[in-house]
Amino acid sequence: MTVRFGLLGAGRIGKVHAKAVSSNPKAKLVAVADAFEKAATDLAGQYSCEVRSIADILAAKDIDAVVICTPTDTHADLIEQFTKAGKAIFCEKPIDLNVERVKACLKVVDAEGGTLMVGFNRRFDPHFMAVHDVIAKGEIGDVEMVTIISRDPGAPPVDYIKRSGGILRDMTIHDFDLARFLLGEEIETVSAQASVLVDKAIGEAGDHDSVSVMLATASGKHATISNSRRATYGYDQRIEVHGSKGAVSAENQRPVSIEVANASGYTRPPLHDFFMTRYTEAYALEISAFIDAVESKSPASPSGLDGLIALALADAALKSIQEGRAVKVSEITGVMADKSVFQGR
Amino acid sequence: MTVRFGLLGAGRIGKVHAKAVSSNPKAKLVAVADAFEKAATDLAGQYSCEVRSIADILAAKDIDAVVICTPTDTHADLIEQFTKAGKAIFCEKPIDLNVERVKACLKVVDAEGGTLMVGFNRRFDPHFMAVHDVIAKGEIGDVEMVTIISRDPGAPPVDYIKRSGGILRDMTIHDFDLARFLLGEEIETVSAQASVLVDKAIGEAGDHDSVSVMLATASGKHATISNSRRATYGYDQRIEVHGSKGAVSAENQRPVSIEVANASGYTRPPLHDFFMTRYTEAYALEISAFIDAVESKSPASPSGLDGLIALALADAALKSIQEGRAVKVSEITGVMADKSVFQGR
Amino acid sequence: MTVRFGLLGAGRIGKVHAKAVSSNPKAKLVAVADAFEKAATDLAGQYSCEVRSIADILAAKDIDAVVICTPTDTHADLIEQFTKAGKAIFCEKPIDLNVERVKACLKVVDAEGGTLMVGFNRRFDPHFMAVHDVIAKGEIGDVEMVTIISRDPGAPPVDYIKRSGGILRDMTIHDFDLARFLLGEEIETVSAQASVLVDKAIGEAGDHDSVSVMLATASGKHATISNSRRATYGYDQRIEVHGSKGAVSAENQRPVSIEVANASGYTRPPLHDFFMTRYTEAYALEISAFIDAVESKSPASPSGLDGLIALALADAALKSIQEGRAVKVSEITGVMADKSVFQGR
Amino acid sequence: MTVRFGLLGAGRIGKVHAKAVSSNPKAKLVAVADAFEKAATDLAGQYSCEVRSIADILAAKDIDAVVICTPTDTHADLIEQFTKAGKAIFCEKPIDLNVERVKACLKVVDAEGGTLMVGFNRRFDPHFMAVHDVIAKGEIGDVEMVTIISRDPGAPPVDYIKRSGGILRDMTIHDFDLARFLLGEEIETVSAQASVLVDKAIGEAGDHDSVSVMLATASGKHATISNSRRATYGYDQRIEVHGSKGAVSAENQRPVSIEVANASGYTRPPLHDFFMTRYTEAYALEISAFIDAVESKSPASPSGLDGLIALALADAALKSIQEGRAVKVSEITGVMADKSVFQGR
Repeated sequence: MTVRFGLLGAGRIGKVHAKAVSSNPKAKLVAVADAFEKAATDLAGQYSCEVRSIADILAAKDIDAVVICTPTDTHADLIEQFTKAGKAIFCEKPIDLNVERVKACLKVVDAEGGTLMVGFNRRFDPHFMAVHDVIAKGEIGDVEMVTIISRDPGAPPVDYIKRSGGILRDMTIHDFDLARFLLGEEIETVSAQASVLVDKAIGEAGDHDSVSVMLATASGKHATISNSRRATYGYDQRIEVHGSKGAVSAENQRPVSIEVANASGYTRPPLHDFFMTRYTEAYALEISAFIDAVESKSPASPSGLDGLIALALADAALKSIQEGRAVKVSEITGVMADKSVFQGR
Repeated sequence: MTVRFGLLGAGRIGKVHAKAVSSNPKAKLVAVADAFEKAATDLAGQYSCEVRSIADILAAKDIDAVVICTPTDTHADLIEQFTKAGKAIFCEKPIDLNVERVKACLKVVDAEGGTLMVGFNRRFDPHFMAVHDVIAKGEIGDVEMVTIISRDPGAPPVDYIKRSGGILRDMTIHDFDLARFLLGEEIETVSAQASVLVDKAIGEAGDHDSVSVMLATASGKHATISNSRRATYGYDQRIEVHGSKGAVSAENQRPVSIEVANASGYTRPPLHDFFMTRYTEAYALEISAFIDAVESKSPASPSGLDGLIALALADAALKSIQEGRAVKVSEITGVMADKSVFQGR
Repeated sequence: MTVRFGLLGAGRIGKVHAKAVSSNPKAKLVAVADAFEKAATDLAGQYSCEVRSIADILAAKDIDAVVICTPTDTHADLIEQFTKAGKAIFCEKPIDLNVERVKACLKVVDAEGGTLMVGFNRRFDPHFMAVHDVIAKGEIGDVEMVTIISRDPGAPPVDYIKRSGGILRDMTIHDFDLARFLLGEEIETVSAQASVLVDKAIGEAGDHDSVSVMLATASGKHATISNSRRATYGYDQRIEVHGSKGAVSAENQRPVSIEVANASGYTRPPLHDFFMTRYTEAYALEISAFIDAVESKSPASPSGLDGLIALALADAALKSIQEGRAVKVSEITGVMADKSVFQGR
Repeated sequence: MTVRFGLLGAGRIGKVHAKAVSSNPKAKLVAVADAFEKAATDLAGQYSCEVRSIADILAAKDIDAVVICTPTDTHADLIEQFTKAGKAIFCEKPIDLNVERVKACLKVVDAEGGTLMVGFNRRFDPHFMAVHDVIAKGEIGDVEMVTIISRDPGAPPVDYIKRSGGILRDMTIHDFDLARFLLGEEIETVSAQASVLVDKAIGEAGDHDSVSVMLATASGKHATISNSRRATYGYDQRIEVHGSKGAVSAENQRPVSIEVANASGYTRPPLHDFFMTRYTEAYALEISAFIDAVESKSPASPSGLDGLIALALADAALKSIQEGRAVKVSEITGVMADKSVFQGR
């Protein structure tokens, strides 16, 4: 079976997914849609597919799945429409910036029995997957403390910041998802602190650029997250898991691994300076996992619920910063008791 | 000038300091005292010095300085007695487990104009000092986020745990001091979480074995500390400082740095398995710094106040764990407004 | 301009090049030929191109360039035929196992003014290229000593060994080319020693499996090469260049860079276990360089002469082993004085 | 038993050994001799021992062992005198620059049944010892290829060069000894090449500053050595052993192991810049091993024979450079058939 794809949104991340779909032997990129016509035409030309409107893709019989790369505020509506139209959906994170809106959207997906995967690409990074494998094999015993250090090479434009939902929902959300992925147990409480150290304009836009987070599970496992919007040495992405029998870590990645020695010392080049070069393989592997899920009619992971919980952790962290206290995740996700939300998992 | 020393306490750490004093060309170990006579006699034999009672050392005219390595609950009393007797004092941390007792003790030292140095040995580790130098030279710009990972090879006996004042006052206290040393700004708020993951007996003794801490300064700098009482791979002691222009880190130390490669991969040996082998050089260098301070009649650092603040941070962390909120350090050290406490700095 | 390709040989390395050609936006794979028809058909199916005979590709007007991946003993003949037919040629190393045959072949290419590139893929490894760039920028001053350690994960079948021309012409030849690439000066003398330590069957086939080589240039620069047909820890490929102002090195590559710590120490996974995964990027980049040379009608590098000299170095090394002395390369390449051989450079 | 020492020569290396002897609990430094009286007096003052003449030390009843740190051309005579006087001898390498003189000297030691240890300090470096231990435990199977890279931070004064016996006898000799130590089998043939790349004045003094050596044993094991008199990045001292089951290596050592990251990359400090700081522990451990040998009346290692063979390897390498061929070690050590030479082993 070949999974036939429609791509919604031909921007930066849309191009990444177009390439991943096109080079996957089990998939075919059939059509691309974008409000900005030239973007759609260019991408369609590159991958020899059609330009269509979103409405046409929704109605198309020759399309099995869509990749949603449109602006965040359209995600939830599109998910609802396409799941009702019977299309499998890969949606870039976040589903929405509002937890209640996400819950409502996931109920629709549940009701339809639809396939929804959320784009937490880091779960598919080969190095991070290898860390997860080591844990899964029991090599480090019981997981006890997860440490995530995640720093961007530089802050995005303030205009982006303003639409982003804030650093916790835009950047830390990836680390919340990774923390859950590595802890193997739901997070119960969130404590966070944040400040503006990189760029005052970020503060003036109502956001922070430097964040520390502590997470705890019911059984007492810990995770800490350290975020900054700027790292002069490149895209700093490290994870480490300490367990009862040992520890496992994934180091930073750089484009070339050489070392120059001279009177000043031994120098290795800076890290990748962009998330797309850092996570090139991860993007291809996540689309591949989605295709496999569609093909085998098995649940896609990370699921819509994973997207909801990561967002709830961001909201809990924000509340913790505002109120100076440890916040229970259940304060945000009270309605999670409604088991139907979990059915899609 | 040769600084003439009396050593109070001939136990494990007393032996370390006896060696440091004896091999320092500016110092002479004159006498050793210990309640357990054989311990004193053995050590005196090894370093060709006398065995005396504490009272005799207090009264001795041929002794300029003492190293206090007796049980914690005797420290404050001994400091007060010896400072009144005009001796310079190097005291193992902590001064006392009670903040008010420490304050009272420091007031006596202040009143006497005495010299008091507290044994935060890690400040003298050559690798950590090199990190501090890099910061001091401005190589990483403004310090923004400090990350400290500190894990013991194994938990001490529960009997020790019971007398220790708890993991925060016994183990994390070193990291609190290091965080201050590296941040270069006083800590304003403390958030902490703790659990029992290593050994239930530790929990039954009323303590924790796994701790995460977040610290914030008034200007918004962050520090995080991750502690565990057990690391199968050795004594895990890492620091990393992220700043506006770059970052600097000190890696773990191992007895030998070889690597064996075979079909299982590339393996380096475990880390040091004991704080004394890990910090051998640091112990010698801290005593050397104390001797230099005594000789030059300049203030010793880390000071009694440094000891007080580290303890207050531990108390604030404990309160944070108990109350599930960010605790201001001033809640613990309110009386710090009494400027006389700071005079000894 | 799109460079239209014929592929001669659909075996293991042929598949690698078929993928590289197909995914290069400036190229098109038109036809594939293989004596074993199913191999050709399968590959043609995968890349949607035609199956043709070698004769048809030779005569084809819709083919600008060929990639020669047939058995070694056909290379020289095919080069001569295709250069006369006006096709640009990328040929897997070696051109031939006989130096005189290579010289004759290169004269034909020279006479025709043809484009010939030889597949020394390692020059295109991003890490090795970065080492070369550091040298070219003068960062390490004058190159003085090159160290190459190159070990295969495991020995090839003895049948392959018998047809290979011996380890020096089959394996070390890559290192000879790299040494020239890094030294930036022609090699004048070769000293070598070799033994059978890995597999007696290799010795019985008249070959060696463990080789050490020393090279010297006229100005006194050194290179050393260490080869083994077996490395339990994976495909060991390291280069290091020591110069007057510093040194530069490229470390080994592994599929994932994680580290597991436990009571046995700190372990990173083994290296790549296969040249194709190790040099994936290099294969794509060398075809890309060839396409650029064809498109811009500029000389291709590594050239036929590079192929000849690497082979001559292998022959000199063999003579050194046989005669227990340093062998001048000119003893092998005496006829190089015939300047016409160098014209293609 | 306390081993009572006389120190012959109070220069740079004499001071190192004085410290090692003095801080060893099983030894006592009794007397020091030096032609330059102030040197002797200063050292004697520092370690509270006597200044005596060499003749007095030779005759002294309160001295069991001597450390010979006088100029090289006095070593053999002193060894003969002191061995006849019944003193155990630790002698700095080399015993003499002339192989025949060394043989004659060793015969005297043999005849007297004396204890003689030669100062190949690198065998006692903890990292190199750990490499040796890994081999001895069989962890890498049969040793096949040893790689030694050994580069000095900077060239010594030309005056020193002129008296040194040449780079092979002065510098490479350490690597010859290490190669034997790691190969575990005698070396049969030596091939070497050398040039002047660092400083023309070294060439004008008749010496080389850049050397490559290949060694082979009878069973076909290899070792390569790469030497330079200058490394801008510090004292470069690496060993690596490749075996049938794996490999083991010892990395370079630096005074502090920190890393600074910024826009230029990740930089670790240069290496040790001096052999004495690099091999501080090794010097203490070799004296300790000598003391143990004296105390237990067991043979000291490295022995006089080890010193002889390393020198013969240097001579063979020189001959190889001069004659452009692989030289058999037996060409130098023909008389080794005289078994008595080996009895001291």
